[in-house]
Parts: sequence; structure tokens; C-alpha cells
Amino acid sequence: MRIAELFGIRVPVVQAPMAGVQGSALALAVSNAGGLGSLPAAMLGRDALGRELEAMQRGTTRPWNVNFFCHANPAPDPAADAAWRALLDPYYREFGIAGELQPRAAAREPFHADLLPLLERFRPPVVSFHFGLPEEALLAPLRAWGARIVSSATTVAEARWLEARGVDAIIAQGLEAGGHRGHFLDDDLTRQMGTFTLTPRIVAAVGVPVIAAGGIADAAGVRAALALGAAGVQVGTAFLCCAEATTGPMHRAALAAPDADHTALTNLFTGRPARGIVNRLMRELGPINAAAPAFPSAASALLPLRQAAEARGRTDFTPLWAGQNTAGCRAVPAAELLAGLAPGAAESAQ
Amino acid sequence: MRIAELFGIRVPVVQAPMAGVQGSALALAVSNAGGLGSLPAAMLGRDALGRELEAMQRGTTRPWNVNFFCHANPAPDPAADAAWRALLDPYYREFGIAGELQPRAAAREPFHADLLPLLERFRPPVVSFHFGLPEEALLAPLRAWGARIVSSATTVAEARWLEARGVDAIIAQGLEAGGHRGHFLDDDLTRQMGTFTLTPRIVAAVGVPVIAAGGIADAAGVRAALALGAAGVQVGTAFLCCAEATTGPMHRAALAAPDADHTALTNLFTGRPARGIVNRLMRELGPINAAAPAFPSAASALLPLRQAAEARGRTDFTPLWAGQNTAGCRAVPAAELLAGLAPGAAESAQ
Repeated sequence: MRIAELFGIRVPVVQAPMAGVQGSALALAVSNAGGLGSLPAAMLGRDALGRELEAMQRGTTRPWNVNFFCHANPAPDPAADAAWRALLDPYYREFGIAGELQPRAAAREPFHADLLPLLERFRPPVVSFHFGLPEEALLAPLRAWGARIVSSATTVAEARWLEARGVDAIIAQGLEAGGHRGHFLDDDLTRQMGTFTLTPRIVAAVGVPVIAAGGIADAAGVRAALALGAAGVQVGTAFLCCAEATTGPMHRAALAAPDADHTALTNLFTGRPARGIVNRLMRELGPINAAAPAFPSAASALLPLRQAAEARGRTDFTPLWAGQNTAGCRAVPAAELLAGLAPGAAESAQ
Repeated sequence: MRIAELFGIRVPVVQAPMAGVQGSALALAVSNAGGLGSLPAAMLGRDALGRELEAMQRGTTRPWNVNFFCHANPAPDPAADAAWRALLDPYYREFGIAGELQPRAAAREPFHADLLPLLERFRPPVVSFHFGLPEEALLAPLRAWGARIVSSATTVAEARWLEARGVDAIIAQGLEAGGHRGHFLDDDLTRQMGTFTLTPRIVAAVGVPVIAAGGIADAAGVRAALALGAAGVQVGTAFLCCAEATTGPMHRAALAAPDADHTALTNLFTGRPARGIVNRLMRELGPINAAAPAFPSAASALLPLRQAAEARGRTDFTPLWAGQNTAGCRAVPAAELLAGLAPGAAESAQ
């Protein structure tokens, strides 16, 4: 089954949920243009989530998706936090920041039971998860109102795990993808495969529709993913410069710079490996550093540095999330970008 | 221009040259079945190369390729060699090997001027290089007899460099590919892109035909690569279990094992990053270890360990070269495997 049929959409493209750089505006633009727009909930508090869900419900009659992280928050580890701040101390001194007076970074909260009544008010047609799935007791209510359940797999083993738990579709997140890797069964990064390998391997291993993600930036990429057996695609990076995204101006400038295609997986910004454009912090500490505390704890110690550097026009400490293929980024309305990804489907949507 | 036209072949598939696991037999089988068979010269001495070139000339009237490395041999570095052997010393003791009495590993020699008279006797229709290109004075004679010149790019910058030096086609070696990475302008592995990104980026950047490599294991993969703009594909891993390959039985068994899809880039076996199935040495020293001396010096200290372990039926020290996509490996004649990669082209070759 193709995802157009599964989700009731016209264009076989899921707009990837990208916490911190987009909200309902981008998701609505994509859904109203015939794709599946996604609202990222991971960095929204309960009130903000309620407002965004209301915006989605008001703004479209088409299917849409809301995405949650489902990590387990780590136990407090003051020693690890102290070691992390000690490593960052030269930067605090460089920017004249008191390392002890940290504002909290925007929290990343996992999906939890208290959100169910709120969600039920809006009954999102699709609910997607990253880092596995919440327990079945939290999924059953979503299924009860007919929501399609989707999650990401970065290995064949994760895809089989998700299928066994009854997901309606699996996102095959290839190594090229931007933002956080969704791995949840094994944190050995050498097990992460490129889109060209991961997509057909997962297609061969499971019976549910597979959505290819990672490196897909234009209509040729969509055709190639479908040739590999995908039932549709998920595209994130290409939407980052769209008018409706909230991507900051320095992040947009980095995406347009000649070295935008130099990305790396880094655990520095949150504690979990995520792909972003290489910047000063990644160069100086190494993109993967064992001192970064467990996800999502690494973020709060970096926030004052990011703020201080950005105030001076520098992205030395800014997570510049991006996939390897930044060639598709364009500062156009999302509907125009979506139409370019699937010209045939977009025409039939007129 | 598609590579079928460029090389005068029927099936748009280059069989990847794989030094150490194949010779003229595999190359001939592929060329005679309508693809472009490749003879890897890097580990052949001059006499063996002469015999293999003669076998190619006698064995086919179809186009074929001979592949050379073109690295610069490093200056002797006794301190680095000693440090490397010291790191390996616990293994020497485990296997009762005197670390001082090393047989030399099969040498990896770069292309050099003394080979030109030998090559001119056989005038290979295609000459491909890995790790860049030799100097122009060594290429001019090949061009003079009409050989097509090909090399691998792992970044857009490398593709532009190759095009500026007049290559006839560029292999876009995606990160999924097995064996040695071909990078030659920058050894920062974070610049290496997956096939799904690298192929269209290079296609957009150069005017010569681009051959996609890395993760292509079946007909769907070939179609997907062509959809991304490739003029043809290069396939290596899928041929490793063919009857005509000289892949050893333990390597074949590893390719058929459930964990064959766990590969990593490692510099342990030669000093340069190359993709192979994760084994004991890679797990215990880390796949990338700064103590491994410069390519190709790392190999000789490992050879006695490899021999001793293999004598006990173990691949602890064997380079098990493989790409990420081992799903296409089949113990069939190469002609049958080739036909499966491009059913339409193979039919028209009947």
C-alpha cells in the first residue's frame, strides 16, 4: 500500500517533523498542498502543544501528523553534568558567562499519559514517534480514534520490532538524514545504514509500508526511493528554508553557504547523535564526545553559549541541523517545494 | 551519455575491481555477459599482472577494465611500525607468533611509468584508478591508444577535480560501498556522503557520465541509481560470492551470516579507511585507530596473525571487505548475477 492511500493524501511526501525550526504553519502548508504535514511536539510544553493542535485542526481538513519523542528521561547525574560544564568552561570564560547560572534549555519531553486527553480533543489522523514507541497502553487510545501509528527504524532489527508492535508504517531513516538519529535498540553507530541500503533491506523484511528518509531532496530522489520499494518518502532538510519554517536567519545562512554539505553526526548538542552542519564546537570537541551527558541533558549547559555567540552573529554553539543533501533547500512557499518533489501528484491535486 | 554507449557495453553495470578476492576469471565472466568486467591490479606484481592481462585479452572480445591504485607510498616510519606492532603484541603472544619475524603482506603498489610498456601490449579499453589519478604524463599514453579513463570521487570537490583532469567518467563512491574509500583530497570521513546524496550532487556538478556505487545490489537498486541521474552503476559486494570470484571460504561464510550487514569503515588492515564486516580486531581496537600506520604499511604486521587465526578457522584478523548491502550476494555464475541486475539489458544481449 502506498502512503497516499494509507494516510488519505495526494502527494506521497511526509514533511519531516523538525522540533525547534517549525510549527503548525509549515505543517498546515504541506497538508493543504496535498502532502502530510507534521507538527513536532517534542519541545512544546502542554499549553503550546494545545495551541498548535488547535491551529492544525482549524487550519486544514486534510490529514496531518503530530510527532512525539519517546525516550526515557535519564536519572539526574550531577557528576556527568559537572564534567560536561568543566569541558565547556573555557568557552564560558571566553564569552564572560557564569557557568553556574544556567537558564534551562527548552526541554525535550517524551510522550506520556497526561497528554492523551489533550490529544483526544483533536484526534490527529497520524501520530508518529521517534526513538521507538511508547508502551502499548499509550498507543491503544490513539488507535481507538483511528490514528495511524508511525515510527522510525534505522536498522532492519528496529523495523521488525516496530512491525511486531503493530505500527501502520515505518520510516526507514537513512544515515543521510538530518537531526536526531532514531535508533533505539542499539546505539552502535556503525549499524546505521545509508538510505540506498536501508530502504530495500527494510522493505524486504517487513510487510507494512516503508517511508524512505535521508537525502531525498527533489523529484528524482522521490522516484529513486519509490524504485527501491518505498511506499512514500519523508523530506525534512529541503523544507528548512521555506517561508513557513521558523528556521532562524543564521541557520538559513548556514544552509545556503558553500560548506553546508559538510555535516556530521554529533552528540554535543543534546547527548544523542544528530546530524548537523559542522561548526566550531563540533570541530573543537569532536562531533562525538563521550563527555556529553545523556539525552537530552547536554543541551542546557550549551544554551547560554549559544545565546552569547548568536548575539555576536556566530553559530559556534548553534545546532545547525541538516541532512547530507542540502541541495533541495529553497526559500519558497512549502506548497511550491512540495509540488517540485512530486510533479505528477501535485498536478493531479489541482 | 550512458555508460553502455561510452564503454561499448550492453548492460550498464561495471563490476567493481576488488583486489585480493578476484582476478581475470570474474572480470571475463562479466565482460562476456555484457557488463564491464574489471581486473584489479593493485596487489599483482608485474609478472602476475602480465599473465592476467593476457588472460583478459585472450578471454574476451568485449570491453574490459583494469584498475590501479594511485596512492603515494609513504616514507619508511620505523617508529610508527614499532608502535603498531606493540599494539598488536598481545595478539602475537596469544597466537605464539614472533612479532619480529614478519613475512611481507602482499604489497599494494601504485600505478607507475614502468607499467606502460606492459599495458600498451594489451591496450585495455578502460583504465580506472582509485585514490585520485596518476600524473598527466602517465595518462597521455593510455589516452593515445583510446583507453577510457575513469576514477572514483567521494565528494563533489573530488568529482570536479577529476573532471578538470579529463576523465571520461566518474564513479560516485557512496559511503555504503565496500573496500577502500577512494577519497584523495580530504581524509575527513565526515565529508563522505551516502549514495543517495552523493550521486545527484555529483551529477549536478559535472558534465561527464557518473557511475553510482555503494549499496546497489539488485535491479531495483540499478533503477534507483539511474533515477538519481547516474549513467550506470558499479557493483562489487554482490559479486563476492560468485563462482568466478576468489573470495575465500571464511569470507564467503561471513557474507552469508546474519551479522553480515554489520560493517564499518576501518583503517586497521591497511592504514586507509575501508568498509568490511565487523570482526574481533575491529571490535577490540576500534575500527578506526590512530596507531595504524600509513597506507599500505599497516598490512604486513597483521598478515601472520591473519594466517595463524585462519588456520584455526577464525576470521579475527581477516579483512572481510563488504559494502553495507550484502543482500545481493549469491553463489551463482557472474553472468546470472549480472542478468538479475539489469533484466532488460540482459535480454537485449541475448
